[in-house]
Amino acid sequence: MGTAPAPCLQGAGIFISCYIWYVKQEKMFKFQIIKSDRESLARTGEITTSHGKIQTPVFMPCATVGAVRGISPQELKELGFELILANTFHLYLRPGEETVKKFGGLHQFMNWDKTILTDSGGYQVFSLGAGNRSKERTRLVKIEDQGVIFRSHLDGSRHQFSPAKVLEIQKSLGADILMVLDDCTPYPVSHQEAEESMARTHLWAQKSIEIWQKNKNSGQALFGIVQGSVYRDLRLKSAEFISNLPFDGVAVGGVSVGEEKSKMYEVIKWVGPRLPKDKPHYLMGVGEPQDLIFAAKYGFDMFDCVLPTRLGRHGTVWVTQNFKKFTKINLRKTSFASSKEPIMKGCPCPACHKGYSRGYLSHLIREKEMLGMRLATLHNLSIIQQLLKKIREKV
Amino acid sequence: MGTAPAPCLQGAGIFISCYIWYVKQEKMFKFQIIKSDRESLARTGEITTSHGKIQTPVFMPCATVGAVRGISPQELKELGFELILANTFHLYLRPGEETVKKFGGLHQFMNWDKTILTDSGGYQVFSLGAGNRSKERTRLVKIEDQGVIFRSHLDGSRHQFSPAKVLEIQKSLGADILMVLDDCTPYPVSHQEAEESMARTHLWAQKSIEIWQKNKNSGQALFGIVQGSVYRDLRLKSAEFISNLPFDGVAVGGVSVGEEKSKMYEVIKWVGPRLPKDKPHYLMGVGEPQDLIFAAKYGFDMFDCVLPTRLGRHGTVWVTQNFKKFTKINLRKTSFASSKEPIMKGCPCPACHKGYSRGYLSHLIREKEMLGMRLATLHNLSIIQQLLKKIREKV
Repeated sequence: MGTAPAPCLQGAGIFISCYIWYVKQEKMFKFQIIKSDRESLARTGEITTSHGKIQTPVFMPCATVGAVRGISPQELKELGFELILANTFHLYLRPGEETVKKFGGLHQFMNWDKTILTDSGGYQVFSLGAGNRSKERTRLVKIEDQGVIFRSHLDGSRHQFSPAKVLEIQKSLGADILMVLDDCTPYPVSHQEAEESMARTHLWAQKSIEIWQKNKNSGQALFGIVQGSVYRDLRLKSAEFISNLPFDGVAVGGVSVGEEKSKMYEVIKWVGPRLPKDKPHYLMGVGEPQDLIFAAKYGFDMFDCVLPTRLGRHGTVWVTQNFKKFTKINLRKTSFASSKEPIMKGCPCPACHKGYSRGYLSHLIREKEMLGMRLATLHNLSIIQQLLKKIREKV
Repeated sequence: MGTAPAPCLQGAGIFISCYIWYVKQEKMFKFQIIKSDRESLARTGEITTSHGKIQTPVFMPCATVGAVRGISPQELKELGFELILANTFHLYLRPGEETVKKFGGLHQFMNWDKTILTDSGGYQVFSLGAGNRSKERTRLVKIEDQGVIFRSHLDGSRHQFSPAKVLEIQKSLGADILMVLDDCTPYPVSHQEAEESMARTHLWAQKSIEIWQKNKNSGQALFGIVQGSVYRDLRLKSAEFISNLPFDGVAVGGVSVGEEKSKMYEVIKWVGPRLPKDKPHYLMGVGEPQDLIFAAKYGFDMFDCVLPTRLGRHGTVWVTQNFKKFTKINLRKTSFASSKEPIMKGCPCPACHKGYSRGYLSHLIREKEMLGMRLATLHNLSIIQQLLKKIREKV
């Protein structure tokens, strides 16, 4: 038998309900700088979303089709990841954002209760549709100021992505951090073409902000993207333009241009110092340990790359003695066949720590056995995670 | 500063050393019946090897190339498996038993410290070399009373397996339970051919025992194999012949003959009652839940099959309400695309218990994503493990 609550309890209940309502209404995305380096632009920070807190600089493993290949959410958490990237392009085509929405969004769908960033899908449209060569851009892709028309690589069906459309898709997916549609400039590209492409990226960024400010979901954040290829004047112009729009964070795209590391480093040096200090800086598609170390010094806070998982699946793993210099070794090589050593002594990853030898992994990789791919992937993800921790500690 | 031990301590030390030596010399393989059913031949038992104790009836997951596809030893232990099967044929070809031996044997190589049974490799030689058709048996395989000559399916190189050779290989691999070479009769086959094949199996069994008794490793056990195709007289003759040899256990081979379940059930009914009560009975290549239930009633204690892992990799999973009737469902079907249900309600497996939906798994399987294959495999292995537990409890 219950009794009616006393008036003071009723009052407290109303107060708590109001407070919860207020907190829910409050914008959930926050970025706070914790520490800044004296000798470089490096800083540590904390991103807060409605799915938790993230220590920056941070690396995001790629859950391309809604799963980091072969790795469970539980394993990602055990490695300490708090933020992953999912691909809008892939999820839009299969299973479709409406299907994901029926599950309550991507978090519920893929069983991951921490933060998710979705890309805009633009990069995949341009790379799958056009390859890297400018002339082929028209084959599968038609770019207009309204957006981009493409054919699915799966069944040839025709689709259109516009600044509004990719925001709608990402909202349906329920991501915590959304990316605007950008025109992913091919490489190599002339100054003129790069400038036209950048202008379109700016037009789309402007449109995205207008749409976003009308109907944004208070729990979600939107990042803009700086383009401009390898041209200094364009990069500086783009950095200024995107920085001046009210985005929650600023990303830099199109820096991973083949093997030309020097070009990437130049772009990082030009753009890093021009980005707004109070917003997170996200360097897209970068994941080589050496590049992460370099970019963090220029103030970059977020990174994503398929490299740790892709290399792992093919049996290539990073080893390092001091987390300053890194070597890639290919376990597939028969020279490892008799090695009883772990991939890397003292490494706490599930492959090294649990006692799997290079020889056994070499055998599994050559046999295309999933367990080998998985263990190599877990090692690579762990190496990147350990590196990011060291980068944060060093600031 | 130490002092010399008192004479009584010295004596105790010597006694303990002698006892340890005695235990090491003692044959490590033991089989003990714990409980026998009143209404059938079913029994529960305990196998002891130098790598632990195993409750029977038991199912052995197949670690074909030295790994249960996609599943780590740690995960197998968490599912409660105490015994796995590894394939001599595959490990002989790659990485080679000498390589495995350098690691200290298969346990160290694959990081599994519980019991391992290795097959003789005969089945693979005959099935890869000959398919199921009698006429093609000569294509890749030459069968003589000395053994069988075959070409590698990997590089076409020529190899010979004899009763002595397969024991040598398995000893090098360091298995706890070894299987003799048998002539795997094709199906369908005439009575005459089946009888010739059985006679060769018996000849090889006799040879194997002779070799084994001369130079066996005290920690390892050897099982014989009953053949005889689908002919009652041959099966009874073979059961008697193999049962009378001093093997540590008796296996029954060649029962999985295509889709004809009735033939398999007949063989089980004929042979089950004729096997020596005090030795473990191993029904080779059987893994459908319904067949395990049937065979356990006829006194079979050990089973192996690639089915749980192979079905799982292709997205097919078992579901059951009472562990008496089982249904196979193919998650690949788009009818599961929107299902928020787990594969099976109340199932404690890592897929169902951790909250993955049929819809998400369906998406992953259709995308050929490793995580989906793994979760479906873990579910199937868990179902089989739960079933075996219920079979043991029911005796």
